[in-house]
Amino acid sequence: MTSHRDAKIVETWATNAAAWISAVRNRQIESRAQVTDAAIVDVVLSRSPSTVLDLGCGEGWLARKLSSFGCEVIGTDTVSAFVDTARSAGAGAFYQLSYDDIVAGKLAVTADAVVINFALFGHESSEQLIRAIPALLNARGVLVVQTLHPLVACGHRPYRDGWREGSWTGFSAEFRDPAPWYFRTLESWINLFTTAGFTLLEMREPVYPMTQQPASVIFVAGVMR
Amino acid sequence: MTSHRDAKIVETWATNAAAWISAVRNRQIESRAQVTDAAIVDVVLSRSPSTVLDLGCGEGWLARKLSSFGCEVIGTDTVSAFVDTARSAGAGAFYQLSYDDIVAGKLAVTADAVVINFALFGHESSEQLIRAIPALLNARGVLVVQTLHPLVACGHRPYRDGWREGSWTGFSAEFRDPAPWYFRTLESWINLFTTAGFTLLEMREPVYPMTQQPASVIFVAGVMR
Repeated sequence: MTSHRDAKIVETWATNAAAWISAVRNRQIESRAQVTDAAIVDVVLSRSPSTVLDLGCGEGWLARKLSSFGCEVIGTDTVSAFVDTARSAGAGAFYQLSYDDIVAGKLAVTADAVVINFALFGHESSEQLIRAIPALLNARGVLVVQTLHPLVACGHRPYRDGWREGSWTGFSAEFRDPAPWYFRTLESWINLFTTAGFTLLEMREPVYPMTQQPASVIFVAGVMR
Repeated sequence: MTSHRDAKIVETWATNAAAWISAVRNRQIESRAQVTDAAIVDVVLSRSPSTVLDLGCGEGWLARKLSSFGCEVIGTDTVSAFVDTARSAGAGAFYQLSYDDIVAGKLAVTADAVVINFALFGHESSEQLIRAIPALLNARGVLVVQTLHPLVACGHRPYRDGWREGSWTGFSAEFRDPAPWYFRTLESWINLFTTAGFTLLEMREPVYPMTQQPASVIFVAGVMR
């Protein structure tokens, strides 16, 4: 179901899982420490969900954080090293599931919120997953997606959808073999949600405190029923 | 109802009406000639409206263009020189009405589409107008707004709402006394629509053919009923 490049993204996370766990736990990623971690927590909590699915949960920091505020959280990741590490830390139920597994209906639960925090870097894999999410949401449930802000990530390259070369610039020397990632304009992100049956409820653009430039974009979408 | 700076915007259009009419009719504004004129026409026509309200219509080019595709168009502008010029060219009904007039209910019609093309540069005046638009729309009617793309217009200044100094850079020497304009982030634009009872149906980011960088943003919103 997924292309070669979509599959390469998963491979790269498996390759770099140990380095990633260390970087996240030591808060070495500046954008996360300064802006985006707090931003995603704020947005999710603003919707007061009792139950949350954290898809592409990595080592589980967000699931633990939301649990500490009283949410019942299920985290999924396709990389076993992440799931094992998340499970060891507790504060949530963690399952090893790929996006293909979720699209195939193997996550047979519903929640008040589905959150995907910097975990939609593929092309077909992301589109298939988004289309599968309405089935995972309760009646007034919301999808919350945080990702790179397209206008900032675009740089001077053409502002249009397409695969971009990956890079670990800014990360430690331990990181290797970056995967390509699929760039989407804001127009395309919003179109992806609406064609999957969502309506955009809110969009946030968290900024860096010093430069006041956007660090990310967060979409909050509800299902049109 | 409007602030000093909101009022200044109207004054500036009155001051520069003749220069503006000449610039538009001679297609001297590169962004319009290359990208944004065609983009707004495409978006409006994609919704197949029979009736259109063009608010802040200026000298009427958009009303005439939409009329040529069979739409019945009413244009309004607060600047009498624009309304007179639009009326002389025909192909639509044109009324001199300020946004305050419209907010006060003096435009007692409804349409399939309300279009506001680069005519929301104020703060309170824009917010009051957007909140008044649901009453101007038929049951499945849409609001179409084209404006400066915030990420591009922002430059290196802080990405947050606020008044910005105006400029006629790139326009002929005839233009004078630029008005300040109110900068809004994308988050704020979308929030403005949703708090006024709209749901965002679509967002487009037309790009320049050569640079492939966004020339504007177009929001299409429907009323939640």
